[in-house]
Amino acid sequence: MPKKIAIIGATGYTGSELARILVCHPEVEIALITSQSHSGKRFSDIHPFFRDILETELQTADKLAEAKIDLAFLALPHGVSMTFAEKFKNANFKIIDLSGDFRLNTPESYEEWYQKEHTFKEGFEKAIYGLPELFGDEIAEAELVANPGCYPTSAILALLPLIRENLIEPSCVIIDSKSGTTGAGVKAKAATHFSNVNDNFKAYGLKKHRHSIEIQQVLEKAGNRDLTLQFTPHLLPIDRGILTTAYAKPSGFISEEQLKSLYRSFYADKPFVRLVNSPPAVKDVRGSNYCDFFATYDERTNNIIVISVLDNLVKGAARQAVQNMNIMFGFDERTGLHMVPVNP
Amino acid sequence: MPKKIAIIGATGYTGSELARILVCHPEVEIALITSQSHSGKRFSDIHPFFRDILETELQTADKLAEAKIDLAFLALPHGVSMTFAEKFKNANFKIIDLSGDFRLNTPESYEEWYQKEHTFKEGFEKAIYGLPELFGDEIAEAELVANPGCYPTSAILALLPLIRENLIEPSCVIIDSKSGTTGAGVKAKAATHFSNVNDNFKAYGLKKHRHSIEIQQVLEKAGNRDLTLQFTPHLLPIDRGILTTAYAKPSGFISEEQLKSLYRSFYADKPFVRLVNSPPAVKDVRGSNYCDFFATYDERTNNIIVISVLDNLVKGAARQAVQNMNIMFGFDERTGLHMVPVNP
Amino acid sequence: MPKKIAIIGATGYTGSELARILVCHPEVEIALITSQSHSGKRFSDIHPFFRDILETELQTADKLAEAKIDLAFLALPHGVSMTFAEKFKNANFKIIDLSGDFRLNTPESYEEWYQKEHTFKEGFEKAIYGLPELFGDEIAEAELVANPGCYPTSAILALLPLIRENLIEPSCVIIDSKSGTTGAGVKAKAATHFSNVNDNFKAYGLKKHRHSIEIQQVLEKAGNRDLTLQFTPHLLPIDRGILTTAYAKPSGFISEEQLKSLYRSFYADKPFVRLVNSPPAVKDVRGSNYCDFFATYDERTNNIIVISVLDNLVKGAARQAVQNMNIMFGFDERTGLHMVPVNP
Amino acid sequence: MPKKIAIIGATGYTGSELARILVCHPEVEIALITSQSHSGKRFSDIHPFFRDILETELQTADKLAEAKIDLAFLALPHGVSMTFAEKFKNANFKIIDLSGDFRLNTPESYEEWYQKEHTFKEGFEKAIYGLPELFGDEIAEAELVANPGCYPTSAILALLPLIRENLIEPSCVIIDSKSGTTGAGVKAKAATHFSNVNDNFKAYGLKKHRHSIEIQQVLEKAGNRDLTLQFTPHLLPIDRGILTTAYAKPSGFISEEQLKSLYRSFYADKPFVRLVNSPPAVKDVRGSNYCDFFATYDERTNNIIVISVLDNLVKGAARQAVQNMNIMFGFDERTGLHMVPVNP
Repeated sequence: MPKKIAIIGATGYTGSELARILVCHPEVEIALITSQSHSGKRFSDIHPFFRDILETELQTADKLAEAKIDLAFLALPHGVSMTFAEKFKNANFKIIDLSGDFRLNTPESYEEWYQKEHTFKEGFEKAIYGLPELFGDEIAEAELVANPGCYPTSAILALLPLIRENLIEPSCVIIDSKSGTTGAGVKAKAATHFSNVNDNFKAYGLKKHRHSIEIQQVLEKAGNRDLTLQFTPHLLPIDRGILTTAYAKPSGFISEEQLKSLYRSFYADKPFVRLVNSPPAVKDVRGSNYCDFFATYDERTNNIIVISVLDNLVKGAARQAVQNMNIMFGFDERTGLHMVPVNP
Repeated sequence: MPKKIAIIGATGYTGSELARILVCHPEVEIALITSQSHSGKRFSDIHPFFRDILETELQTADKLAEAKIDLAFLALPHGVSMTFAEKFKNANFKIIDLSGDFRLNTPESYEEWYQKEHTFKEGFEKAIYGLPELFGDEIAEAELVANPGCYPTSAILALLPLIRENLIEPSCVIIDSKSGTTGAGVKAKAATHFSNVNDNFKAYGLKKHRHSIEIQQVLEKAGNRDLTLQFTPHLLPIDRGILTTAYAKPSGFISEEQLKSLYRSFYADKPFVRLVNSPPAVKDVRGSNYCDFFATYDERTNNIIVISVLDNLVKGAARQAVQNMNIMFGFDERTGLHMVPVNP
Repeated sequence: MPKKIAIIGATGYTGSELARILVCHPEVEIALITSQSHSGKRFSDIHPFFRDILETELQTADKLAEAKIDLAFLALPHGVSMTFAEKFKNANFKIIDLSGDFRLNTPESYEEWYQKEHTFKEGFEKAIYGLPELFGDEIAEAELVANPGCYPTSAILALLPLIRENLIEPSCVIIDSKSGTTGAGVKAKAATHFSNVNDNFKAYGLKKHRHSIEIQQVLEKAGNRDLTLQFTPHLLPIDRGILTTAYAKPSGFISEEQLKSLYRSFYADKPFVRLVNSPPAVKDVRGSNYCDFFATYDERTNNIIVISVLDNLVKGAARQAVQNMNIMFGFDERTGLHMVPVNP
Repeated sequence: MPKKIAIIGATGYTGSELARILVCHPEVEIALITSQSHSGKRFSDIHPFFRDILETELQTADKLAEAKIDLAFLALPHGVSMTFAEKFKNANFKIIDLSGDFRLNTPESYEEWYQKEHTFKEGFEKAIYGLPELFGDEIAEAELVANPGCYPTSAILALLPLIRENLIEPSCVIIDSKSGTTGAGVKAKAATHFSNVNDNFKAYGLKKHRHSIEIQQVLEKAGNRDLTLQFTPHLLPIDRGILTTAYAKPSGFISEEQLKSLYRSFYADKPFVRLVNSPPAVKDVRGSNYCDFFATYDERTNNIIVISVLDNLVKGAARQAVQNMNIMFGFDERTGLHMVPVNP
């Protein structure tokens, strides 16, 4: 019998990406989709490209109690997820939260970087950071998974082998990331007005972007040491995709071949990580759950450069969430996720 | 046992789109992929986004004779397909040709509009025009299917109900179409140089585009009368997608409701045609096999306006070809084609 | 002594385009720029690309009375311009209104197509339609000029020679236009959210777009006869530019050479109209005041096709307004407008 | 009497950008434009947007000897410029070379990084690096100016104050740059095929890009010390614009206010450098000669971050060349260069 799934929050990009995957997933059924602002409408009224595919009527979230679901995806804004997680903390279903409400180590760091009070502090005790390549075992047992941010997935996977093996100087890491606009959400605002983005490019969130601390905390935990990371996001005139260019100084000798070999072995059994032989392009993973890497060492400058690409709505959000769901249900982690990238 | 399939011509967009569908198709296996210029390389060397997904080695086409395949897709340029079709005219497999070599009624009209000699004139006798919504029965029996052009699929489906029911003036039809650049192929040329397309827009092929005659011949056959069609293509700064705005004068009285009802009933059982309530956008069908329609009547001007959108590489090429394959093999025509559009 | 100019409404694209031209115009000075919502800020706070170029402090509009200006550009929304025009109807300066408030023939047609009450009906008596290629003499004497819409400039100039010379069937004209997003204004909304526009394309405003009636009324006046025009606008994923593809049936015999010769002679002395030998692209006029044309006759179908391109913010708005200003002040109409198109 | 100018090499983007500026420059006239492949055609045949503006007939370069010009711009490929510079080394006119042939310190470093023999080694003795903000005095006396590369202009101006004042660690500088496609030239190739760029993003030239050594040599000269610079270029899906994000470690204490003050005073009298209060966007300088900067210090990480934007065809090529020309002729360096950025 298929598992029964709820999507809480249907109107954003994360909601529609979840639906795209779940309607084709062989082991689950979508039992409930909620939207406070659009309840009563059909899912395809909000996302017309789902016409004839998913015509489910949107419900208010209070239908959740009676829906007998096995797992709920929270596709809600930061600050809203925590109230749901609290309300259903004793419920009989698992939760995968796609917001930032439970990604950090402590409520204190949340309140510092999100500038918002956290109202469900106990949540941090049971929340597992949902990066399958790092915390697969814990995810399998989790009741509440904090699905990683898009930039963090890109940056953490790029640097993880180096940090785990303690191969780089901890104070000299630069993470220069570039993202498509869907990371900024479905809501129209000046920053994503077409003429402000098209044929344009800019940095934003310098020094203060919330993903800085998420990347740092996860990598510190992975490396068991303090790190100083400079993270700078930029806005690309594209819909989907994140490319991260990471720079690090080796702490000792390393050769190009050792570097490549490290990445190969580290990710040998990770089905959605691909190591490529030349710098990857974001379109090579668009619409897919792959994260492609290229790592190289520059002898002239003594720098390591790692480039990673992923689709911010997919490996950076919805499909990574489904990968987590697969693990939580004991399915093969690849189930329903084998889509070929859409290029061109 | 799965059907064995060959893709002849692997390097273009049509080749990679065919592969995207066929690797996930439950009833077939890709037995052979050929490329004259790249034989010996792997498919993923040419299309890096297929890394870890399709690593098949490319063969020269002379491997076709021994491959014991059931069906070959010809993803070849105009003028090259005809030599293959001739060479394998007695072979034991079916052929779906994605070029324009057998789409027209006669070799004479081919030679006039393509400005090229046709070397396999008998091919026209057995070739079936592969528009499943129109010729589904003939396709089921066909040995050689001429897969429709991208613009013609868009224009013919838009006008077909009106022509079939003889509801419009035959001399006053305007087909104003706009296409993404992938229709121009994978090969770099001035017309598709980024800076010539980006933030730009232009018409091309006025009065002489080959799809003019393809549209006209198919609709004349469908309506059993002569037609005069003005077809103007334009180049959009997007990758995929065709939007056709068609204008026609009703030959008698028609109301908005009659018009909508006509389209509804005409396409009632066509799984990949969707009638929508407001003008559709090309991104609503991107990466999917859907063709979305909007038809309306303007009382003020006494014009009918029909707008259709499709993905030129999918319903306009590769996936329509697979839809034809399904019909030729007696599968449900939807098999392997249920992908949700990629939006955003 | 330079003429003193006011720009009423500084925050939109029209306001910044006016400023771009006027800061380099040799015969005028910008004496006043107003903004109700941003008064007290500098112009470059709103438009950062003007930093070090135009640092003028924004004023509220009530400063207009004391500013002793010679001419005011109203870069205001529809419905707001009319209140200004009324308030300053006896003022000592000329007005060029860039909104739609005085473009139509009568208050009645305004109220029908704009669905809004018109509160300054006498304005229609003195307002002159500011298309210099058609009404240059009247503009020279005008106190209130209604600057044409962007689509109408494109469509009217394309069809004007045919209508003037009475060469086409009046009931069979199709105007299929495609515009960049800046025509929709500076304000963020769903329709211009990046991911809704990028790699996308759609029609909008079918049958009901206000520019339909503007085009029709001006061409009826020019041709002294009734016309039925079908106008369909589409939204291009570009910033600037309109391309209009117009189709018409000749009412009698016409040859390709006669057609081209008609356009050549009709626009012989118009400095901003260029006749080109192949279909023009919108980038060929970007950032400039040119309108490029290509007219051709299709013998096979007996249709005339005319394609025009212009920059909707320039010839379609701000620079056409300055062209009108030049005429109203008795300057050469080209003064300050000789910018080379920005391509690529 | 206006100075007489030649543009050698008319068909590329640099050639057309030079023409855009020079046709409006009050102190010069274009006396000769050459093209080996298109001689006999008009300039507007190659660049249709110049129709009615610049209809000059293209000449072969051997017309140069008799043309009595005062200065020649070489808009030629690397490797071709050097043969011209040699041929006209005793000629009576000045030369500004826009290729990379004379930008480096020595023929040896040229041959190493460009992988090409240099056939006019003496040229290095008299060539002056044409960055007016750094070498204004030498440019005023120069006979041969090597116009800087686009990336180097962006990177050097961003780091110059820090290097000059010896404020950063010399071995820990990261220059992460992102450029539009026009930097790759006018010729169609796979790398700039629309579908390979649109909605895409990638790094290229890792470790080996020629601009690495150009940046390093100029900054080493400016700082009078050795430097290790990591330069990584990326390809943006836009036409024009470079954004550089540079990271450096302070060698001692520095505060945010000291940093900003340093940049303000360093560039106080440079008319085309603008310091802005928030991260600049490439569109804020598009089509203009401005280079906008934002410098900030991150206390948490002890890193300096400097972001610069410029238009690669303008400040990064053609207009910087005209700025050099102005200085060489003793004009005000701003003459003819006051164009307002084109945004949107």
